[in-house]
Amino acid sequence: MAHKMGIIGYGGMACYHHDNSKRVQERVKDFKVVAAHDIDPNRLKLAEEKGLKPYENLKDFLNDDSFDLVLVATPNNFHKPMVIAALEAGKNVICEKPVAMSVGDFDDMWDAAKKNGKLFTVHQNRRWDRDFRIVKEAVETGLLGKPYTIESRVMGQNGVMHGWRAYKVAGGGMVFDWGVHLIDQMLWMIKEPVAEVYANLHSVKTPEVDDYFKAVIRFDSGLSTQIEVGTYNLEMLPRWYACGDGGAIVVNGWDCKGKITHAKDFEMKWEQEVVQTEGGPTRTMAPRPKETLEELPLPNVQTDWTDYYHNVLAALDGKEELIVKPEEVRKVVQVMTAIFESSATGNSIKIDRYYK
Amino acid sequence: MAHKMGIIGYGGMACYHHDNSKRVQERVKDFKVVAAHDIDPNRLKLAEEKGLKPYENLKDFLNDDSFDLVLVATPNNFHKPMVIAALEAGKNVICEKPVAMSVGDFDDMWDAAKKNGKLFTVHQNRRWDRDFRIVKEAVETGLLGKPYTIESRVMGQNGVMHGWRAYKVAGGGMVFDWGVHLIDQMLWMIKEPVAEVYANLHSVKTPEVDDYFKAVIRFDSGLSTQIEVGTYNLEMLPRWYACGDGGAIVVNGWDCKGKITHAKDFEMKWEQEVVQTEGGPTRTMAPRPKETLEELPLPNVQTDWTDYYHNVLAALDGKEELIVKPEEVRKVVQVMTAIFESSATGNSIKIDRYYK
Repeated sequence: MAHKMGIIGYGGMACYHHDNSKRVQERVKDFKVVAAHDIDPNRLKLAEEKGLKPYENLKDFLNDDSFDLVLVATPNNFHKPMVIAALEAGKNVICEKPVAMSVGDFDDMWDAAKKNGKLFTVHQNRRWDRDFRIVKEAVETGLLGKPYTIESRVMGQNGVMHGWRAYKVAGGGMVFDWGVHLIDQMLWMIKEPVAEVYANLHSVKTPEVDDYFKAVIRFDSGLSTQIEVGTYNLEMLPRWYACGDGGAIVVNGWDCKGKITHAKDFEMKWEQEVVQTEGGPTRTMAPRPKETLEELPLPNVQTDWTDYYHNVLAALDGKEELIVKPEEVRKVVQVMTAIFESSATGNSIKIDRYYK
Repeated sequence: MAHKMGIIGYGGMACYHHDNSKRVQERVKDFKVVAAHDIDPNRLKLAEEKGLKPYENLKDFLNDDSFDLVLVATPNNFHKPMVIAALEAGKNVICEKPVAMSVGDFDDMWDAAKKNGKLFTVHQNRRWDRDFRIVKEAVETGLLGKPYTIESRVMGQNGVMHGWRAYKVAGGGMVFDWGVHLIDQMLWMIKEPVAEVYANLHSVKTPEVDDYFKAVIRFDSGLSTQIEVGTYNLEMLPRWYACGDGGAIVVNGWDCKGKITHAKDFEMKWEQEVVQTEGGPTRTMAPRPKETLEELPLPNVQTDWTDYYHNVLAALDGKEELIVKPEEVRKVVQVMTAIFESSATGNSIKIDRYYK
C-alpha cells in the first residue's frame, strides 16, 4: 500500500526527515512527504518551497486525506496535543523524541492510538546508530562474557542548547534531548526490568535546564549501566565502555573506532610482593603482562537509518512487527521521570514500585 | 625527640613501611623501626633477619619501652583489638587502612586514643600520590572553574585478590582495599559535607567480596563525584577525569600523563542546521572547532610519601598539626558503610542523616 506523510512542526528535525525521505523512497517507492503544518509563516514558506502543501491551520491539515501518516516534530511540550489530534483524525503517528514528559501524558497518547486503532510510534532512530549496534552485538554474542558494567556517554563541548531546548516549559535539557536516546538504546539492548535509577543533574551553562547529567541504571540481575550526557565536556570519555567477566569493549565515538580485549591466559604467575609504581606500591593493580591479553576487532556491523521508516511502513501494511513499540517507549519515559525525581530528592528511585 | 616504631603484623605492607623507613631517616635521623610482633613464625623470622626484635607475644611486645610508636598492619579484622591494646599500653598508633569496618569500631579506637592521650592516625598514604595532588592543585587553583563532576578510577586487569583480601571476615574487597584511598582523597580535596552516596558492588571473579564497584558521592553544593575500582577491567578508563564550567582535566594513570583543556573563545558562530556525523544528525554535539580550544600542561607537582611520616613524627613533637586526622578518617568509614548499605538495598544513603 502507498503511504504518504504530513509533518506537524517544520523545524530542523522535520527538514532532516524530509530531506532523507528520498533515501526511504529508494526502498519504498510509493512513500512521499506531501504536506506540512507550522505556526511560523517562515517555516511554512520553506516547506512550500521544498514542495510540500502548506497548512496554516491544523484542522485543515488533518482533514487532508492525501496522507495517512503524520510526523509530529514540534517542540516537546506540543507533542501530546498534536499526537492526540492526529490520532483522533484517523492518522497513524510517528512522534519525535522525547514523546512525552510524563508517564501520564504518554498514556493519554497511547490510549488515543488504541481507541482509534492507529499505529503510534516514536522516532527512536538511534537504535540504528552503528556505534550502538556494535556494542549490542558484542553483548548479545557473548564477546564480553557476562557484562557487569555498560557505560554510554555523549559529550559535547559547545556549551549551548539550541532554541527551545534551553527552556524548561518546552521540555528542554539533555535528559529529554539525548538522554532519551541513550536510555532507549540501553533498555532495548538489556531486556530486563530496571531495579532502580540514581541520577545527578547539573546546569553548567544553561541555567533553566540540565545541560549535564549522569544516571546509573541498575537492572534486576544486578547489571550496572551508566548514562552520561554533557554539553561542556572539554575533555571527553569514550562513547561506549563496557566490561564483563570475559572481556571488555571500548568504542571511542561515532567513528566507531575501538576494540575488544580478552584475557588469553587467565592463569599466570602472580607477583608475590608489592609492585612499585610511580603512584606507590600495589599488587592487585600491578600491570598484566601484555602477552596474556588478546585484542579483537569490533564486530563488523552495518546499519541504515532508513530501516526505521521501512519498518514503520511495513508495520502499517501488517508485514512486520513494529520495532519501536509504545510499551518500550513508555519505559523510557518512566526512567526519565525517575532521573528527574532522583536528582531533585537525592534518592534512588525503584522504577517498578513507583511507575507501574 | 627521637621516635622508634614497632610493627604489629609483619606482612607485605609492613615490609613496605620497614624498607622505606630508610628514606624517612634521611629527614628524621633518629627515627627507626626496632621491633615486630606476628603470629606467623615465618614472618617473625623474616623480621628478625631484617634486624627487628621479634615478639611472639603481643603483651611482651607492648611492654617493650624502646619504641613509642606502633604501626598496626594486620589483616583488617584485627585492626581494632590491636590498635586499642597498643593505645592502652601507652603507645602512639598508626593503623593501616581501612582503619575500621564500621563507624562503631572506629569510635571505640578513637575513644581509646582520647582516654590515653595518645596520637592515633591512619596510613592514608595516597594523599601524597602525585596524580591526586595534580588534580587537587588544578581544582583548588580554579583551573577547571567551578567543577561539576570529578571522577577517580583505579582499574586493574588481574582478576585476583591477594590472600585474606578475598575473604569477607578479614575485611576483604575493593571498597576496603582501594576504595578507602580514593574516598579519602576525594573527601580531603572537597572539604564539604557529603549529601548522599549511591553504589553498585559486583563480585566478578572473587565470589565472597566486591572486586568491582562504582559509587557516586554527591556533596552538599551539588558537586557530583564518582569513585570506581575494578580488578578485571581489561579495558581501562583514565585515573582522573574532571570537568568544570571553566575547563576539564584528564590524568591517564600513575604516570601522570594528561592535560587540561580550556575554551579559548566561548563565543562562536554556531551551525544553524543539523550537522551530519557518522552517528546521525546533531547540532548540540557538533564538534567544536579546534582553534577555540586551548591545551594546558598539568600543574607541576612534586610529592614525597615520606612526608606522611615526617608529619606524624612532627605532630608527636607538637611541631605540626596532624595531617591525617581521626575525624577525617571517620568520615571515610561512614562513606564506606554507606556504599555497602546502598548496594545491598538499592537506596542512596544520606550520610548526615544516617551516620551522625
